Order: sequence, then C-alpha cells, then structure tokens
Amino acid sequence: MKGIILSIAPHVRLVDITHDVPPQNIASGAFYILAAHTAFPNGTVHLGVVDPGVGSGRRAIAVQASGQFFIGPDNGLFSYICQADRDHRVFEITNQTLFRRQVSETFHGRDVFAPVAAHLALGIDLKALGKEIQDYVDLGPLEPKTVGLRRFEGRIINVDRFGNCVTNFTPNLFSSTGTERRFQLTIAGRKLNLLKRFYAEPPVKRREPFAIWGSAGFLEIATTNGSAARILRITAGDQIELRFL
Amino acid sequence: MKGIILSIAPHVRLVDITHDVPPQNIASGAFYILAAHTAFPNGTVHLGVVDPGVGSGRRAIAVQASGQFFIGPDNGLFSYICQADRDHRVFEITNQTLFRRQVSETFHGRDVFAPVAAHLALGIDLKALGKEIQDYVDLGPLEPKTVGLRRFEGRIINVDRFGNCVTNFTPNLFSSTGTERRFQLTIAGRKLNLLKRFYAEPPVKRREPFAIWGSAGFLEIATTNGSAARILRITAGDQIELRFL
Amino acid sequence: MKGIILSIAPHVRLVDITHDVPPQNIASGAFYILAAHTAFPNGTVHLGVVDPGVGSGRRAIAVQASGQFFIGPDNGLFSYICQADRDHRVFEITNQTLFRRQVSETFHGRDVFAPVAAHLALGIDLKALGKEIQDYVDLGPLEPKTVGLRRFEGRIINVDRFGNCVTNFTPNLFSSTGTERRFQLTIAGRKLNLLKRFYAEPPVKRREPFAIWGSAGFLEIATTNGSAARILRITAGDQIELRFL
Repeated sequence: MKGIILSIAPHVRLVDITHDVPPQNIASGAFYILAAHTAFPNGTVHLGVVDPGVGSGRRAIAVQASGQFFIGPDNGLFSYICQADRDHRVFEITNQTLFRRQVSETFHGRDVFAPVAAHLALGIDLKALGKEIQDYVDLGPLEPKTVGLRRFEGRIINVDRFGNCVTNFTPNLFSSTGTERRFQLTIAGRKLNLLKRFYAEPPVKRREPFAIWGSAGFLEIATTNGSAARILRITAGDQIELRFL
Repeated sequence: MKGIILSIAPHVRLVDITHDVPPQNIASGAFYILAAHTAFPNGTVHLGVVDPGVGSGRRAIAVQASGQFFIGPDNGLFSYICQADRDHRVFEITNQTLFRRQVSETFHGRDVFAPVAAHLALGIDLKALGKEIQDYVDLGPLEPKTVGLRRFEGRIINVDRFGNCVTNFTPNLFSSTGTERRFQLTIAGRKLNLLKRFYAEPPVKRREPFAIWGSAGFLEIATTNGSAARILRITAGDQIELRFL
Repeated sequence: MKGIILSIAPHVRLVDITHDVPPQNIASGAFYILAAHTAFPNGTVHLGVVDPGVGSGRRAIAVQASGQFFIGPDNGLFSYICQADRDHRVFEITNQTLFRRQVSETFHGRDVFAPVAAHLALGIDLKALGKEIQDYVDLGPLEPKTVGLRRFEGRIINVDRFGNCVTNFTPNLFSSTGTERRFQLTIAGRKLNLLKRFYAEPPVKRREPFAIWGSAGFLEIATTNGSAARILRITAGDQIELRFL
C-alpha cells in the first residue's frame, strides 16, 4: 500500500496509526479511527483496511467529515466518524481509472483504497470518485441504550494492547444525571463502583479492576500494571451495564 | 538502522514493510520482499534483515533487479527477486569505507546494510560496493515440481498474520493445464477442492479451509474469518500437492 | 501522538524505534533508548512513553545529553542516557502553554510529551519548558556490582523479541581483569562459560545457551535459532553472576 501511494504521490507524509486491530474486527478499527483522527490536521486522508468482505459486493467509500477524509470499505469502519459529524458526506468509489491496473479480489487496500487515497492527497475532488450515497453501512449508534431510570446498557467497543477495555459511556452521561461518582457497573457478572483518576492512583490492589476516563473520551475498565481484559475475561462486543445510585 | 540511514541520507523516505517475519525465517522474508517490491517506484532501495548467519562468513550482497535495489545478507533472502528478473545483477559488498566505523558481529543490519543502503539511495554506483558475483545463495526454484501427469508438488512459502497459507502455485499452472476449477489439493493429510473467489464468498462454513488467489499472485489456503494455518496446523515449508482431475 | 506532532511541526521526520516494550516495563524502555540513540544525528528529539504513573504526581522531563534531546515521564526512562553523559541536563516540563488544550489523565504521551517534543524540534529553548532539576528519578547504576575478587553481580536489563537476554556486563569489565575468555556466568541456577563470536558459530547445539557480545555493547545470553529467554526461563530484572576464573 505504501509503495502504491508513494508512486502516485511521492511527497505525502505516511503515518502508521496501528497494526494491532485484531483480524476482521471492524468495530475495533472503527474505534481507533475515531480516537486518532482528532489529533490530525485538517485535510488529512485516513486509510482504513479492516476488510473481511474484500472482493464481495461490498462497496468502497470515501467519507468527508470533521474536515478530513476517510477511505476504505463500506462495512461500518467509518460509522463513528459519520456519527461524530452530522455534516459528513459519503461517496461510493467507482471510478476505476483511479485504481491499480489489475485489482486483486483479496487486497483492495493496495489496489483500490491506496491509489484513491493518494489521489485525494493530491487534491482530486470527492465527486470524481463516484456518486454521493446515504445508505452506507452503519455499526449502529455508539451511544449506550437507556434501559431504565438512571440505567444504561453499553458495550465494550475496544480492548487495547494493555488490556484496557473501552466502554461507550461518555462524560455527558455522568453530568446529565447530576452525579459524578455514585454508580455501579456490571460486566461479566461482576460489579464495579470504583472510579480512579489515573492508573496508579492509590491504594493499588493487584488485579483489582476499576473504571477510569480513557484518552479517547470514554470510560474504560482498567487495572494497575495488568490487563483488565484478562482478569475479567472481557472481549470487544461484551455488554456492560451502568446504573447510577 | 533508521538513525544510521538518516545520518547519511537525511532526505530519503523510510518505509517499514513488515516486522512480522518470524525470527530466522529467511523464506518468509524472501516472500515479503517479492510480494512488496512490485508496488514500489523504480530505483527504490530495499533493505532486508533476516540474518541468522550474521558475523559468520556469509557474504553481504546488493542486488539490482526489476529496476530496484536490494541490500542484505547472502542467504537466499533475495532469491525470488533474482528468479523474477533474469537480468538481475548481484554484487558482493566488501567496501568497508561505507560501513559504520565499528562493525558489530551481531547486527550488520545497522552497521553494514543500513549505511550501504543509504549510500545507494544517494546514488553511489553498485560497482563501488564490491565485485560482481554469480554464486550467490539460492533458496531453490520458487516453482513447484512436476511429479506426474497433471500432478505438482508445491510448498507453503509463507503464513501471514491472518493465518493464510501462501503456496507456490501460480495461475499459469492452472491455465497451462487447460482447466480452471477441477483440482485437488492435499496438505496435512487433508484434501481440498474448493476454490473461492473472495474470502467471504458464500456459503460460509466456519473453519472450512479453501483455496483462493492471494494478492501476491499465488494460490493461498484460507478460511473465512479464521486462521487456516491454525485449523490445518500448517507451517511455512510444509509440502502441498496439486492434482488436476 | 504523531498527529499532534505533525500539526505543530509539519516538516519533522518521524521515526518509530520500537512498539515492543512490554507494558509498564520502564527498564526495557530505558535500554532501547540507550541502544538506539547513538545511531541518530545530533539534535534528534527522542520521545519515550513507558508511563505507568501517568496522571499521578510524577513529573514530565526533558533531558539534554550527548547532543540530543529526550522527552518523557520522570520515572527512570532516561536514567541510562544521563549516566552515559556526565554533562547531561534535566528540565522539568511545566510550561502548560505548550501542552494540548485539554490534558487527559491517562495519555500524556499525546497531550504533553508530543507537543513539547514538536516544539523542541522547532528549536524552542529547553529553559522555556520549565526549571532545571537535579533530583530526577534514577533506575540505579547500570554498572554491575563488584561482589568479590573477580566476581560481579549483574542483571538482565532487557529481553528482545528473539529471546536474547541482555546483561549489564560490558567489555571494559573483561579487559580490566586482563582475561578474555575464562569466565563463568551463573543464571537461573545454571552455569555458562561459552562465549560465541556470532550466533551461528559452530558447533551449533540446539537449545544450548551461550554468551555473546550484543550490538548495544553488552554481553547477551543467546542461543542459535531459538529463544534463550524461553529455554532458561529468564525475564528482565533477573540476576546474573559473572566470575573470572
């Protein structure tokens, strides 16, 4: 992919965000793109390849949102990006003149997304890629469900390489209910009500999971110097309940 | 290595291809170099360090092939590159004035290959590195063996991080025999005769291995949303038989 | 982090050294910084984030040593760098005008170190970061302890991805005692007295550990085509005794 991009646009800056997305895990990829994009300058082109449907009928899309561009498969990878900016626009990529001459059925990252991303970096207009669409694939709302009075049903949207488990609970949920600390989380049959401000906040108890505000703006389940995911046997997609007391 | 290169040639573009080659696995490294190089512009300098023989008598070489350059140990790492271009030229690297002042016996990647690659990127002539040689180390032909009428003995030349198993069977083999689909593969005591066009082609059966044309131009053994290598217990180097019916 | 840096200093060169430091392993991070920095040009800014204490009272520091700069948490990560250059200077980073507008309690790499590193790359003076300090955190001397006549107590300061175990024994120790080969190492209840010049030096015995001079200038425990760490069950921090006979 990098070779293709540099062949077309020799002067672009290439930045690797992560190669740690578990195979086929679209939701995890969607999280990393959401978490990383805010740090990048206007006009950045983001290329995401978590693409189990490569070669099937799934479409290729280009998204314009928050002043940046996102290229990849239409499988939900950019859902959160679209949810984060109501003024997003999505274009189906169909202009084959931009693709690599021979397109493999197993690696559109190299043969479709990379050359299109390079052309976008060079300034081509989104309309040159294909027609605008509305019915792109969505992973569903990132927001947790309200399931009762002060009760919310969320999910683990990512597990990072430290074993920190990112939930979809956000600060506004906490402030809108007018409470800051009196809560109870239930996950994997276990109840948690400890909120730490930083990972090493004392008292540190080995293997004790707690909640903490992560750097992407979501509540995380973590433990000091260990993997909360391993201790609690949590994986991405798991449900988690939040109840304010 | 990157620091050394940038100290000599501050304006080169550095691109990481992979750090996923299993330790000491020369054949896997040779595959990645073969697969990646076609995407890069003419004149690119490729630096490969899979080098279990570092510090021994094994030579350092620079290869010119397909309009590009390849620097690394003479252990077969560039075999496939040489096989892919009959007009390749190979030079032994002996000009110590290009090396780092002190050369460690355990990391020629940093002390020999990196500075030589940087000088090549700056335009030094291959002849300045050392004398041309013909007897470089070869991993043996990438082509499968013909072992009978419409029967071929191949091998797994790489297992990627998804668990896809790359064979050395190529499309010309299929077209030269005048058949496209009626074949039988035998690997690890198991027979396969399903060819999918893309990973998610229906009907999808969990843990069912199939053949598929991979993005490097070789037939691969894969499974949908899983690791064929783990399911079939395949590792690089394993034999695989192809028989046309 | 890369997005933040490029937003402030669009023309800097970004180089990834390693993402293989085990979580929370400050000593391993300190080793990689020590090993890598000598290959980089004068004026390079090194950014290190092994930061289990993020958000606590632990300070942020900038170090000037050996003509280069080092930015990160004050937890010992730059200890070896300071030990390697007596003329090092350390500044506490307190100038919040350089930070990202909102500083998360869980990712100072992105919100504090990255923007400060970018400003340093642009040429800001160290004194603009905060006041100079002397009482930075030190991991303790990198040198082994002398525990008897020709007896030294060292430790494993890093285990690399090949399973090579880096000790803190250096060549001067060997030459100062006037002997080159007659030694005995004791680690994990096992005695070793074989020094190989290179990994594949014959005779090669499978799973036989030996000592070898590693590329960072320290004695390593290794094995040919295998992991000494796994064979001997060594982890970073383990003690190792060196005795000259």
